[in-house]
Amino acid sequence: MLKISAKSHELPISPIRRLVPLAEAAAARGTHIYKLNIGQPDIHTPEEAVVAVQGVTDRLFPYSHSAGLLPYREKLVEYYRKNGISVEVDNLLVTLGGTEAVQMAMLICANPGEEILVPEPFYANYNTFAASYDTILVPVPSTIDDDFALPPREEFLKRITSRTRAILICNPNNPTGHLYTPEEMNMLADMAAHHNLYLISDEVYREFCYDGKRQTSALSLKGVDDNVVVIDSVSKRYSMCGVRLGNIVSRNKDVMAAALKLAQARLSPPYLAQIAASAAMDAPQKYYDDVVAEYTARRNCLVEELNKIEGVYAPKPQGAFYTIVRFPVDDCHKFASWLLEEFSYKGATVQLAPAEGFYATKGKGKQEARIAYVLCKDDLLAACEILREALKVYPGRVDLP
Amino acid sequence: MLKISAKSHELPISPIRRLVPLAEAAAARGTHIYKLNIGQPDIHTPEEAVVAVQGVTDRLFPYSHSAGLLPYREKLVEYYRKNGISVEVDNLLVTLGGTEAVQMAMLICANPGEEILVPEPFYANYNTFAASYDTILVPVPSTIDDDFALPPREEFLKRITSRTRAILICNPNNPTGHLYTPEEMNMLADMAAHHNLYLISDEVYREFCYDGKRQTSALSLKGVDDNVVVIDSVSKRYSMCGVRLGNIVSRNKDVMAAALKLAQARLSPPYLAQIAASAAMDAPQKYYDDVVAEYTARRNCLVEELNKIEGVYAPKPQGAFYTIVRFPVDDCHKFASWLLEEFSYKGATVQLAPAEGFYATKGKGKQEARIAYVLCKDDLLAACEILREALKVYPGRVDLP
Repeated sequence: MLKISAKSHELPISPIRRLVPLAEAAAARGTHIYKLNIGQPDIHTPEEAVVAVQGVTDRLFPYSHSAGLLPYREKLVEYYRKNGISVEVDNLLVTLGGTEAVQMAMLICANPGEEILVPEPFYANYNTFAASYDTILVPVPSTIDDDFALPPREEFLKRITSRTRAILICNPNNPTGHLYTPEEMNMLADMAAHHNLYLISDEVYREFCYDGKRQTSALSLKGVDDNVVVIDSVSKRYSMCGVRLGNIVSRNKDVMAAALKLAQARLSPPYLAQIAASAAMDAPQKYYDDVVAEYTARRNCLVEELNKIEGVYAPKPQGAFYTIVRFPVDDCHKFASWLLEEFSYKGATVQLAPAEGFYATKGKGKQEARIAYVLCKDDLLAACEILREALKVYPGRVDLP
Repeated sequence: MLKISAKSHELPISPIRRLVPLAEAAAARGTHIYKLNIGQPDIHTPEEAVVAVQGVTDRLFPYSHSAGLLPYREKLVEYYRKNGISVEVDNLLVTLGGTEAVQMAMLICANPGEEILVPEPFYANYNTFAASYDTILVPVPSTIDDDFALPPREEFLKRITSRTRAILICNPNNPTGHLYTPEEMNMLADMAAHHNLYLISDEVYREFCYDGKRQTSALSLKGVDDNVVVIDSVSKRYSMCGVRLGNIVSRNKDVMAAALKLAQARLSPPYLAQIAASAAMDAPQKYYDDVVAEYTARRNCLVEELNKIEGVYAPKPQGAFYTIVRFPVDDCHKFASWLLEEFSYKGATVQLAPAEGFYATKGKGKQEARIAYVLCKDDLLAACEILREALKVYPGRVDLP
């Protein structure tokens, strides 16, 4: 009997996918579903990008340079400069979405069996990438009780072993929406420098900061030029998740040399995507401002409405477009399943992503769900109303201490 | 001191890249370079694809289904049907170029430390993908003396161990141009069935068959539905290497379930690429016929001219657009370097890909180079003239037995 490999057999299913069959069944019954489970924004991509794609007249679509088209990489350098980050063309390489940048970083920074510390809850797909390379992700607990702030230094220190190679963060954070403070970032830099660790910083939500706050990029930290590897992507920045274009950035020459060899093996990042993303960078500041204003309004609306529901706690995150919410239920996976299988209100229900799957520590996050506020305000209001009504009748309701 | 991981430190440099710095230096001196080293075709992509891209009016570029857009997958099913291959939508998944399909196949079919048999010389980037997952590629020798036919059964059998999980072929073959005969394919199927091995068949050059021959797809072999995993790509078929779109095909449900989990972790194949490739499929038969006629003419021209040069042997391959040529030289790497560093004829020289890098067995292929006949006939003639003149004066010329 032919077997698939052990690691592919054990691959986790993403927490945002687990309930998809139930959602499809509900939709087939005619129930409208407000999808709060997935981070597919409804914001328009900059018009510049669409126009650029329409203007393609190439008679063949050739390989790009493996590191990306030079003009596109030059524009990225300029983009970072505008964000107060000084890097050169050789410090960055264009990837197949942020995904490939994460994969490269994991493969380059750790050998099989070596460890990467990650504050949990964390982006669940990191698990699959790590499993592919037999890299061990070691969770460092953050909690909803302090709005998912960076865990204190001692929580990291007690997990650092001779096998630890890196700290991986996502800032602003998916799934928590936490925006790391300059103090938190400096602490990470300090630990990375003292313990000779890479600091892998996933910054794909850089633009999504609220209440006048700015992101502190790991690339702006002092004294850790060789330690920092940044993951980036245009997916969220320009609402072009489908073009699959990201980049990896590091001032560490060995890291970039290895990344280039990996890039050469897969030949080229996507060509049309680079055309689109390059043009998107010409969008006026108003594009970004409007997007931030829209998400701020959505966040405010969502958090306010959720916190009005008795027993529900929704932190008010300052970045990305997610928040992890605590519900007064026995088990959020059961609650989310029940919402799709047994509940509807005015012909509609809500799809949540149970937070359990974003925690590596078993049993954590059972009362929590990740909510993406990528829907318009009216839809968010309707979804909150459904959740309020649902919690009145959900059989597994519990009162949290 | 921060170190990169052992495996990323040891990543091989692709043999088609090793001479790039020398080629750039030669170009900077004003020497024209006929690039026979790389398989970037100059053939136009079907006009249908360009028109489709120009017609994109989406206001955002969203994630596709992780397995690919359903209409695109349905068109792929139809494409296979036209090629005499019966598969269903669930048997295929759209990937980020053929590359990701190879990566998925390796990860799914073998555990770290397990072995995949590959006739050598083979596509050098397989080395990098295998190294990423600690998969061991075990070369099975084929030779220029019998035009790179499939090695005899006993050569495979004596390399099968308890760790062997798969046989990997490329058909038509990159780098040799060999088109596997139905008998060869049946032998592979027989071995796969008897020894419980996957048969991973990279078929990205399916359309590039000459002299009236047709490719025998591994998907058409009997009794090995669970064993066969096919790698495919639109890069060469529609001369759209830069869109980065491929697919993996298997009737093995476990393989496809694992592939889907890997696909979900990286979210989506590229959206614009699927628009382009989907439209390219509407190209009339004449498009394929013209391409095959053009490559046949180029191959005939190249092989004929090369064989006219004393001491040179060029097999006449029946597929893909590569051939491995034996030169009467001490070392093809030295010869190719010398061509770029010290030789020019009428202001021009030739860039070859020394074949050594396509062999896993050390010392093999020293007198051979891979030539891609992706240039027009006039350029191929000029390149052959340069090679003829070069061999008259190359100091490392040797007379082969």
